[in-house]
This record gives sequence, C-alpha cells and structure tokens, in this order.
Amino acid sequence: MILDDGGDATHLMSKKHPALFKMIKGIVEESVTGVHRLYQLSKAGKLSVPAMNVNDSVTKTKFDNLYSCRESVLDALKRSTDVMFGGKQVLVCGYGEVGKGCCSALKGMGSVVYVTEIDPICGLQACMDGFKVVKITEVIRNIDILITATGNKNVVNRDHIDKMKNGCILCNMGHSNTEIDVQSLRTPDLTWEKVRSQVDHIIWPDGKRIILIAEGRLVNLSCSSIPSFVVSITAASQALALIELYNAPNGRYKSDVYLLPKKMDEYVASLHLPSFDAHLTELTDDQAKYMGLNKAGPFKPNYYRY
Amino acid sequence: MILDDGGDATHLMSKKHPALFKMIKGIVEESVTGVHRLYQLSKAGKLSVPAMNVNDSVTKTKFDNLYSCRESVLDALKRSTDVMFGGKQVLVCGYGEVGKGCCSALKGMGSVVYVTEIDPICGLQACMDGFKVVKITEVIRNIDILITATGNKNVVNRDHIDKMKNGCILCNMGHSNTEIDVQSLRTPDLTWEKVRSQVDHIIWPDGKRIILIAEGRLVNLSCSSIPSFVVSITAASQALALIELYNAPNGRYKSDVYLLPKKMDEYVASLHLPSFDAHLTELTDDQAKYMGLNKAGPFKPNYYRY
Amino acid sequence: MILDDGGDATHLMSKKHPALFKMIKGIVEESVTGVHRLYQLSKAGKLSVPAMNVNDSVTKTKFDNLYSCRESVLDALKRSTDVMFGGKQVLVCGYGEVGKGCCSALKGMGSVVYVTEIDPICGLQACMDGFKVVKITEVIRNIDILITATGNKNVVNRDHIDKMKNGCILCNMGHSNTEIDVQSLRTPDLTWEKVRSQVDHIIWPDGKRIILIAEGRLVNLSCSSIPSFVVSITAASQALALIELYNAPNGRYKSDVYLLPKKMDEYVASLHLPSFDAHLTELTDDQAKYMGLNKAGPFKPNYYRY
Amino acid sequence: MILDDGGDATHLMSKKHPALFKMIKGIVEESVTGVHRLYQLSKAGKLSVPAMNVNDSVTKTKFDNLYSCRESVLDALKRSTDVMFGGKQVLVCGYGEVGKGCCSALKGMGSVVYVTEIDPICGLQACMDGFKVVKITEVIRNIDILITATGNKNVVNRDHIDKMKNGCILCNMGHSNTEIDVQSLRTPDLTWEKVRSQVDHIIWPDGKRIILIAEGRLVNLSCSSIPSFVVSITAASQALALIELYNAPNGRYKSDVYLLPKKMDEYVASLHLPSFDAHLTELTDDQAKYMGLNKAGPFKPNYYRY
Repeated sequence: MILDDGGDATHLMSKKHPALFKMIKGIVEESVTGVHRLYQLSKAGKLSVPAMNVNDSVTKTKFDNLYSCRESVLDALKRSTDVMFGGKQVLVCGYGEVGKGCCSALKGMGSVVYVTEIDPICGLQACMDGFKVVKITEVIRNIDILITATGNKNVVNRDHIDKMKNGCILCNMGHSNTEIDVQSLRTPDLTWEKVRSQVDHIIWPDGKRIILIAEGRLVNLSCSSIPSFVVSITAASQALALIELYNAPNGRYKSDVYLLPKKMDEYVASLHLPSFDAHLTELTDDQAKYMGLNKAGPFKPNYYRY
Repeated sequence: MILDDGGDATHLMSKKHPALFKMIKGIVEESVTGVHRLYQLSKAGKLSVPAMNVNDSVTKTKFDNLYSCRESVLDALKRSTDVMFGGKQVLVCGYGEVGKGCCSALKGMGSVVYVTEIDPICGLQACMDGFKVVKITEVIRNIDILITATGNKNVVNRDHIDKMKNGCILCNMGHSNTEIDVQSLRTPDLTWEKVRSQVDHIIWPDGKRIILIAEGRLVNLSCSSIPSFVVSITAASQALALIELYNAPNGRYKSDVYLLPKKMDEYVASLHLPSFDAHLTELTDDQAKYMGLNKAGPFKPNYYRY
Repeated sequence: MILDDGGDATHLMSKKHPALFKMIKGIVEESVTGVHRLYQLSKAGKLSVPAMNVNDSVTKTKFDNLYSCRESVLDALKRSTDVMFGGKQVLVCGYGEVGKGCCSALKGMGSVVYVTEIDPICGLQACMDGFKVVKITEVIRNIDILITATGNKNVVNRDHIDKMKNGCILCNMGHSNTEIDVQSLRTPDLTWEKVRSQVDHIIWPDGKRIILIAEGRLVNLSCSSIPSFVVSITAASQALALIELYNAPNGRYKSDVYLLPKKMDEYVASLHLPSFDAHLTELTDDQAKYMGLNKAGPFKPNYYRY
Repeated sequence: MILDDGGDATHLMSKKHPALFKMIKGIVEESVTGVHRLYQLSKAGKLSVPAMNVNDSVTKTKFDNLYSCRESVLDALKRSTDVMFGGKQVLVCGYGEVGKGCCSALKGMGSVVYVTEIDPICGLQACMDGFKVVKITEVIRNIDILITATGNKNVVNRDHIDKMKNGCILCNMGHSNTEIDVQSLRTPDLTWEKVRSQVDHIIWPDGKRIILIAEGRLVNLSCSSIPSFVVSITAASQALALIELYNAPNGRYKSDVYLLPKKMDEYVASLHLPSFDAHLTELTDDQAKYMGLNKAGPFKPNYYRY
C-alpha cells in the first residue's frame, strides 16, 4: 500500500515501477495536491488501484484548515513579529476554511477585519459574519496586516505592495508560495534586510518598510507549530483508510478515487471526543426509526455541509 | 409548473390529476418535508417530471437556518418571555445549522451554553466552538432555558421536564412540534395556565412552574418574524429554479430530483451582495487558468462544504 | 425618608415643605438626573439631609447600562422593525457603558459596527475592541442603522439625516429625547407616515424614507422591556441604601451626597449570584492578611474600575 | 527627579541619600509594588516630595493588563507548549483586568472557560460575560489548563495539583511568583523534568505529568513579549508625568501621591489614536455647554469606570 502526502511516492511507483504499482492494494493520500494528481491519473485512465482521498474528509478538513488556522494565524504572527492585534486593520484575502479561521481569530482579538472574495457565496458568508467585503485596492493604503488565504497566485502584486503604508506586515496562510508575488519585490530599487529568521524588511527608496514573513511561504508552517491534536486527527484518518482498503472485500473499491466513508469520518471524530470530556447522546430505537437512521451512523446524507 | 412548499400541491396533482401531472414542465420544492417526499416519489419510480430541490442550495440553507435562527432565537424568547440572556445556563439540543445559529447568538449575549448531539462530527464542532457537549441528564437540573433543534422527536420527555428547576423556559427551534413530548405534560396532576399568547405556565403539584413556549411548536415561526432578507433569498432561488426548468433544453433534466445548479446558487448570493455594499474581486485570466476555473463561476466543486 | 427617581419628590419637599424636609432621615436617588440635582443642591448649601447616590454603584450601573442595553438594543430594534442584523453597517454614537453594550451585541450578531467618540480614552477602547472610530460624516451615507448613546444633544442633525440612504433606521439608546434633532425633521418638505406604533417613516421629496423609532425617545424604554433581573438589582440597591441611612449612627453621614458603600454594592452583587449557580471562593486567613483585606470585603479600593 | 519601576530607586535615595532626596522635584512610579510603597511612605509621613502614580491611569492600566494580557496569554502558552485552545477546559482564577483579558481571548479561541472569584461584583461580571463561576475544587479534576490571575498567594496548592489530570498545564499570569505554591511541588516523591526552556514536567509516582510553565513566575513576561504599543503607552504616561511635576507651579502638588491628571490620561490616549486611523468627534460649543464640559476635556468625572 502507499501512504502518500503530495503524490510523489505514487508518481514514482507508477512511472518507475509500473509492475509493482499494479500489485499495490491501495493508495491513501492526504494533501490537496496529491488528491488533484490522483483525480488526473484517474481521468487519464492510468489509476490501476483504488485510492482514498483523506484530504476531503470532514474532520480532517476542518482541523487542518478552519480550527488549526484559527490558532496558527495568531501564533505565527506573534512569534515572528510580536505585533499587537487589538485595533489593527487587517485584510484577509479569501474566505474559505482558512480565511474563516483567520478572520474569526482576529475578530476575537479586536482587529478590524476586511475580506476579499471572488465567490459570491463565500462573500455573503463574510458579510453575515460581520466582515466588510472589499476589493483590495479599497483598503490597501490603510491596512496594518495583509494575510492571503486564497489558494490562488499573485493575489498580492507589486502594485498593491507599492501602495501599502510603512510597517505593514505581509504574509501567506494559503497555498504554496504563489499568493504573494514575491519575485516582483526582487528589484534593484528595493533593499531586503533580514531582521531575524523568517522576517525580512523590504525597504523602498523613500524609507518605507514592508515586513514580509517567511518570504511568502506558508506562515503557519514556517513560523508556528502544528498541535499534536491536528496531527492525531489526520493520522487516525489515514490509518483507518489504509485498514479499510486492505480489508475491503473484492469489488467494494474499483480503480478510482474515493472519499473516506462517512462512517469512518464519524469514527475519527468519535475517537477524539473523550479528550474533550464530551458525551454523545444515543438515539432511541424509536428516534432512529423516525429519522430513518442506523443508531451507529452514518448520521447525515453525503451532501451535508456541516 | 408547480412551486411547492411541503409537497402538498405535488401530492394532490400526482394523485388526483395524474394526466395533468404528466404535462407539467417541472416542480420546485423549498421545504425539507417536500424534498423528502420528492425523493421517495423518485425512489418509487413515480416521479414523471424533473424536480428542483431548492431547500438544499447553500444560500437558502444558510439563510433559512444558520443566519436566520441566530437572530430569531433571541427575538422569539425576548418577545415571549422578556428573559435576560446574560449568565443564563442554556441547553441547546442539536448542533446542526439551527443549533449552531442558536449557540452563537446565546454565547454572544453572555449565556453559558451546553450542547447535546448524536453525531460525533457535529459534537466535535461544538467542542471546537467552545460548547460543552453533554447528555441531557447531566445538566437538566441546572439549566434556565432548553431549546430543541434536532429534527427528531421526543428529544425532551416528561422525565426530563420533571427534573427541570422552577422557572425553566422550554422551547423548540427545530422541526414541527415533535421535539418536545408536549402530550406527556397533559396529565391531571399538572395545571396549565396560559399567561399570555404563546406562553403557558405548566404547574407541578409542588408549585414548580415550567414556561412552555408556543406549546412546543416552532418558536421562530410562532413568536418571531422572518426578516424580508431571508424571504428574498428563498424567493430568488425559487424563481431561478422555475426559470431554469422552464427554459432548459430537452434532455438536460430527466424525471429526477436535482439540486439547484451551483452557478444559480452563486447568482442568488451575488444578487444580495449590493445591499451589503460588498465588492467582489474578479479573477484575472491568468488566475482563472491557474485555478482551472471559469471567471464567471462556478467557483467550487460540488462537494465543497462552505 | 425619600426614595426618589428623577429628583421630583426631593424638589417638592424641599420647596413646598421645608419644615418637613428637615426632619427627613435621608434621601435615596437612583437616576442620573436626580443625582445631578442632588449635587447641585449640595453645592448650593441647600441639602440639609444625607443623600445616597445609588445611580453610580457598580452593580446598578453595569446592569442598567452595559448588560441591559446589550440585550435591549437588539430586542427594541427587532420588535419595532424586524430588521436582520447580520451584515448590516451600524453606527453607534458614543462608547460609554450603553454604547459598549450596543456594540458588543451587534458585533455578536454579525453587524459591521462603527463608533463615534469625543473622549480619546473611550475612543481607544473602541479601537481595541475592534471598532473603527470615525466622524459621523465619514460613514453617514453608507450605514443601515444609526444608534445614539452619548447623553448629549443634537448628535444627529438634519444635515446628517439628509445624507442617509433610503431605508436607514434611526434610533436613540442614550438620554432623554435630545440626541436626535427630531425637531429639524418637522418641516413642510418632509412627510411623516406612522407605519405602526413607535415607528415613523419620514419621506423626502425624492421618495427616500428614513425609519425613525419612538420619535427619538429612548428606544430601550419605548420598544423593549426591562428584565426583572435588572429591576431586582436596582431595587435591592435602593432598599439597602434606605436601611443604611435609617440605621446609621449619628455622624456617619452628614448633609451630603454619598455613593453606596462598596460593601453594600458587593452585597447586592452577592445576593444575585445564586440565581446563576455561581460559587464564590473565600479567602483563607493567610491570603486575607497577604492582601490586607477583610475576608468579608470590601475587596477593592474605591478607585477600582471593574 | 526619579523615574521608578518597583520603588527601589526611591527607597535607595530616601534611605541612603536623605539630603539629596529632599531636593528632588518629584517621583514618577509605574508599578503596583512601587505605588504601594509610595502610599506606605506617605502614610508614615516620610514622603517629602510629590509623587505621581502612573500605574493607575486608565490608559496604562487597560493596556498593561486587559489588552496586553488578552494577547499574551495565548502567545505565552503557544510558544511554551504548542497547545491547541479549541475545546480545552480552562480555569482562570481571578476576574480582574488580567483575568478578563485571559477569559475573553480563550473564549474567542473556542475554549470552555471557568472562573474563580472572591469578589461578588467581579463574580457577577464573569456570569454576565458567560463564564461559569466555580470553586476550584468543582472543576480541578477536569480542566486542561489552569491560569492564575488573582494577585494573591497560594491560590493553587499541592492539594489542588494532586487532583489535576495527566497533562494539565499550570501557569501564572497574575502577580510575582506567589500564586502557585510551587514550593509544595519540590518533594522527594515528585520528579521534575525540564523539557525545554520555561517548561517543566512534574511527574507523580503513578506517571501523571503536570506541565508547569516558568516555574510559576509570570508567564506573560517569561514566555511572551511585550508589544511596543504597550510600552509606548506606558512611556508616554511616564514622560508626561515627569514634565507635569517638573513644570508645575509651586503649590500645585504637595508631598503626596497623585494619580495622573485625567487630562493627561486622555492626552496619552489621543496620542495613540492616529496609529489606528481613528478620528475623534469634537463637541460643538452648544454641546459642551449642555454637558458642562470643556471642549478640550477632561470628559469624565473622576469616579468614571470606563
């Protein structure tokens, strides 16, 4: 079996050891990128074994993105800059799970938070959660901190950064190192000054300094730590997926990409409840019948959004 | 075409006017119950026209449940009881969209909120949002307010209510009038005293009074109003679904139940952004290509949970 | 003794029945206005009996202002207009106790809240709590709701209201009926339309409608109710003040205005803790000695701000 | 002049150089301890020069305690333990400014927070802010984190720590190193294991580990940093106090301890508003007259609590 994170092991096996690859019982993949590559492989008809997409299980997603980033955004910025959040004007680009986590944390600390979005549904969610949805140019001159969380590229470019005020902090919570166009800052007119590990001052000819964290790489990975609780959720999901693929009777899984079965998703969650001293309620027979549910779950239809 | 809410018109047509029913171009249904009946009809092979499940579009669901209930839970309880929320101990049964809205509002008002859940994933969400997940019997003697939001039946029964303390407020935000076993309170030893419209005191032989709102019916419908904004979201979704089914070329929809296409869901959201003075960002060509997206949307895969 | 609210009884007695007034054992006053009149009387050397200013006791102030208004601002606006708070842009004029309560509640409901202030300390508090501090003219064209809470007069005048957008809601949570210059709206070019009790539409020649609540009077008194809990705090403070003045040995109180002794303030608080099932901790002898405190209180110096 | 922090310079001068001490124009003191020593000196009739208590100015207090601790409690715990806050049960001992800051931050991060208090007024505030007020023994077996913020001694003793569960984190945000009875943990049956700088595991014979931060010293000083903004507030207050004492005409200040004049307190606040892009409103002449205020402040009576 292959337990992969990013798809490199899968790629290596399928390219270099095609004979061995066919004998594999299954692949478990936990990253966005790896999952993307699996779907491409499947689409191209080159996936010869079943694969489990652990990345999009509810529990894993919420902990890796929403809950984890809600904490690491504050942690990463504190450790790298010691900035005070109260009263600061912050622009968060993107209101997906990561952006939602960042905004919630910053609001709790007394920041004034603005959001940019391309998706009207996420934009409306930002409105209803109390954040002003703006175009980046509307606030770029006023903000103290800019955080990217879009998964896209060049969300913040040189034009934007030229307009930022002195002392503005710039960092990326989203995806890879593409969101901020860091390359555009490597011009002869700007001076880079490394003030400490992971922190660069970029200095304009007029003396303006922009504080760039981790050279635009993921600040939550570069400047914060991942709580063991988050790792535990992911590892439990991976282990269950491996066991499921290994034990599955012939025919349950074809050579395709599958989401972790909801029952296992629920099982991973249930394994982590005792550490919160949380006590679930059990359905009575009568209630289960009324709801058309099995008392052991799964409890929701597949399209349920949590 | 049929624009239905609850499925009664659809039922009437299919049973009483089967000939006419076959000539219909499509059905648009907005309620949980009506959607449930449509899926049953489809499963039984008796759905002879395409139907659109508007109930489960993202925008409609969030506004009808999460955002609307976040406001109406406070409103309904204030209008009916004038209760002060600060410092009150409140048990919310169920942490779905409605429960999440209730908990968030009450936490904002300074209540101490407990949650019951049957689903470990929702239970874990409650934990991460700062609510203690308990069995009802753990807190029933201490709480000041109990709110049901499960969609189930007999979540609160006579045994529970017997243990509640004097003055406890009991109401239902969930589903129909089944969640509280009100029938069990209609026994000769208890005295009912209507103290005002929608508010009954139920009096135990020892003088204990429980305050039951709307006789266990939906308190947000009985004691609060529905903001025009919520109605606008729902009506827009319905209208778009009607137009889509009417205009769709032959073959796009078969005799089955469909979710509102994501692009229309996004369109409904976008129609309501101007009232918040919200400004969306547009993808550049380059960014759209990088993300593999059409600049006009849809912006998310179908399994995206928002 | 006189138990007064507004100072009218005190005024009547001192003016019309000076002989009787001198025989009184003491005055207890609970309102801002009444307290103001007492201090004036004292300054003028005309206060011939001791008086207790109950208005400024900690417990009374916090419940009458901060905690009570945090709830009544939502309640009053819902009952009068059914407005949805999520995503609305709201301007709160004044960030004293009342303004703080309003802002906290609206933030919890997902509103985007702006604040005006004259006092830099309160302004800085607003910043640190996450509210943008603006001049009224900066946001007047964009807001959906304007709430006054300054204690001042003509905070919102005709010029401001002329700039508001169609459908803007205008109300007063602060002081008397002076904060909004309602008189300036009674001109022939504007049409008043009473749409329901406490709600007027004021219509501009171009059709713009402004929604004025309670004709500028206190919206929390006009459109909401006062929870019994708040009344209980005030009544307990008054009763204790009466008892104290009646029982005080000669010489403890001179003919002056006194704040409720901190020990009684603490006693009122302690009387209301059991309803929250709250359990205080007692100092050990050793701890009391270390802190230089009496185990029974008072626990704070007089200048403590809570 | 003396600019002191803790009172040591003042003590040295008054004891060792009494002649020089008498020639001093004034003392400015910023710490609780130093202020305490000044009041004792004054009470004993040994304070021969005016002294300014900067510690209790509104702006300084709020920033040093409430706003600063709201951020540093999260920061210090993250940097030392990488703990995840979501869902954790936390006991905060003491609901003064520091405790209020800690509770607000932890609530925002999704912790379930309990409070202990000795003062009924602060206890009632905790209730109204949504925190369960308990005796330490009620929750000591269940909590994941315990934070002291009382200013007292031996708030957490060996008996309490013996009852804590494995992995519980124990730290002090309050006063000196007295709040946790660390001495009681230095017994032969317990093993101390330093796992990293500022973090000790204390191991019970049955294997239970308690995580003690900074050996019970102030965790916000030991494991977090102080934002430059907080330092700026304090330094500005000190500088203004020095200038005021130096420039004051003879007779304005006697040999006593004074609070920073409110006007200067307001001035310090006003100096820090521009960094938040905050715009104050100015009173009109008419409004100033109505309120009985000078347009330049001070804006509040001395007993105002903010």
